[in-house]
Amino acid sequence: MTTNHTINQQKCDETCSTCSPGQAQSAPKSTGKGLPPKAKIDVKHVILVLSGKGGVGKSTVSVNLAFALASHGKNVGLLDLDFHGPSIPKMLGIEDQRAAVLAQTIEPVHVTGNLSVMSMAFLLPDKSSPVIWRGPMKMGAIQQFLTEVNWGSLDYLVVDLPPGTGDEALTIAQLAPNVKGAVIVTTPQDLAVMDAIKAVKFIEKLELPVLGIIENMSGMICPHCGETIDLFSRGGGKKAAEDLGVPYLGEIPLDPEMVKAGDEGRPYILQHEESPTRKSVDAVMKNLVQQVES
Amino acid sequence: MTTNHTINQQKCDETCSTCSPGQAQSAPKSTGKGLPPKAKIDVKHVILVLSGKGGVGKSTVSVNLAFALASHGKNVGLLDLDFHGPSIPKMLGIEDQRAAVLAQTIEPVHVTGNLSVMSMAFLLPDKSSPVIWRGPMKMGAIQQFLTEVNWGSLDYLVVDLPPGTGDEALTIAQLAPNVKGAVIVTTPQDLAVMDAIKAVKFIEKLELPVLGIIENMSGMICPHCGETIDLFSRGGGKKAAEDLGVPYLGEIPLDPEMVKAGDEGRPYILQHEESPTRKSVDAVMKNLVQQVES
Repeated sequence: MTTNHTINQQKCDETCSTCSPGQAQSAPKSTGKGLPPKAKIDVKHVILVLSGKGGVGKSTVSVNLAFALASHGKNVGLLDLDFHGPSIPKMLGIEDQRAAVLAQTIEPVHVTGNLSVMSMAFLLPDKSSPVIWRGPMKMGAIQQFLTEVNWGSLDYLVVDLPPGTGDEALTIAQLAPNVKGAVIVTTPQDLAVMDAIKAVKFIEKLELPVLGIIENMSGMICPHCGETIDLFSRGGGKKAAEDLGVPYLGEIPLDPEMVKAGDEGRPYILQHEESPTRKSVDAVMKNLVQQVES
Repeated sequence: MTTNHTINQQKCDETCSTCSPGQAQSAPKSTGKGLPPKAKIDVKHVILVLSGKGGVGKSTVSVNLAFALASHGKNVGLLDLDFHGPSIPKMLGIEDQRAAVLAQTIEPVHVTGNLSVMSMAFLLPDKSSPVIWRGPMKMGAIQQFLTEVNWGSLDYLVVDLPPGTGDEALTIAQLAPNVKGAVIVTTPQDLAVMDAIKAVKFIEKLELPVLGIIENMSGMICPHCGETIDLFSRGGGKKAAEDLGVPYLGEIPLDPEMVKAGDEGRPYILQHEESPTRKSVDAVMKNLVQQVES
């Protein structure tokens, strides 16, 4: 596992005839039932963060959840599986860092003493290189992120997935041990809620618990006049949770300060302690931890 | 091509050993170089609409582009390749329609006399079913959408891709003939622009022209006080286009009316003829058509 860290731009034609032996070896071995074995990683709770639709704030939720857990003394790993658009390193202001690749292991980026992050972005030659990979290559990479990254002993592994119900989500659900369930992030917009419902059904088909739905971008306050603007409407996430019979974890408003914090590489919850947005985030995180640890 | 229209929930383990002969037959045949042949479809210009990041308004741009072209008398096909989160049928208010599956062909949904739409949503048993497919299955479906859908003779085929640089984008670039190039949609937010730059590099690696960058959600007007709120900042898309030496097609503001139109199944450009947002959309579309037809 050294050459596989470089980005292979070769196009897979999905027939398996173009795979080199090295690539084939990196694919997980199937069990008799055609499913790969669970990865051996020392973690108590794996939490998947996903959304049906992109751009609903899934990575923002992942980052703030990971920080909230770490700030309560938990050992936390944050795994960014959005290969094509990894945003967590940028949100944490660590996008220029690189993961140390040792003989047998990969060292994650340590953000604090008890919070480590791994992302494809730490293995790319530069920030603007696209990852042109088809599904099978991503599956091999996910297995490596689970088994070869030196996570240590974790209380929580928070997994930030790309939007949708594709390869990455299927693979992590198959490979990760102790998956406690999934958090579904949506905006209140009909279009996003429709996809969130699909994400809930996807998780249920995988026979994993849905830990709850978070309604993000739930109204915004005009910074000029202080009036509320219901840009994406409101209440859609809560209604979906009620209709589907899954927990509702709460809503977080659309706050220009939070957008700015993400762009500037500052986790929002480390600042703005007294803001209404911060209080919303805290309430959501408390509900989530309660779901996981109850 | 009849049984393949039903949604196959079987999980692919990417080893190709679990594929039935029927599935294997639906995969495109490789040429000597390992690349599949171009699909035979009667179309003058295929335009790909993609984004690095999700939730930037890519589908909104696709819908409004398709309507703008059709309203100028062009025969237009609109192909929704976002299998996991198809939003175009909902945006057009046709999410309850189903594609007629005939002996040899699939009939797209005809929105107007010269605008036809095809989406995975038209083949799903219900609106909330997730498509749990890995890459190879999506490749087969894309080939079928190109070759077996009764598109007729098209001037334009607008292809709405899922966010990122994954299987769907690679496959359509390989299979579709006369690909005129790609439009990259981004918001001005740093995080989105970073991914848009990757999308541009991805298209260049595929040796396709970049038709231009569109900066969407570029400022919004508070509906209460009329002041401008730079929620996602401004100018990031334009700067990226200048830095990368690709055309800049213009900006479209974030307009709560446009969000509402999408949720209610009304193409925004068919209404609000005098609004500043509509004028922005028109200007962007004119620039794009100029790029394609020049």
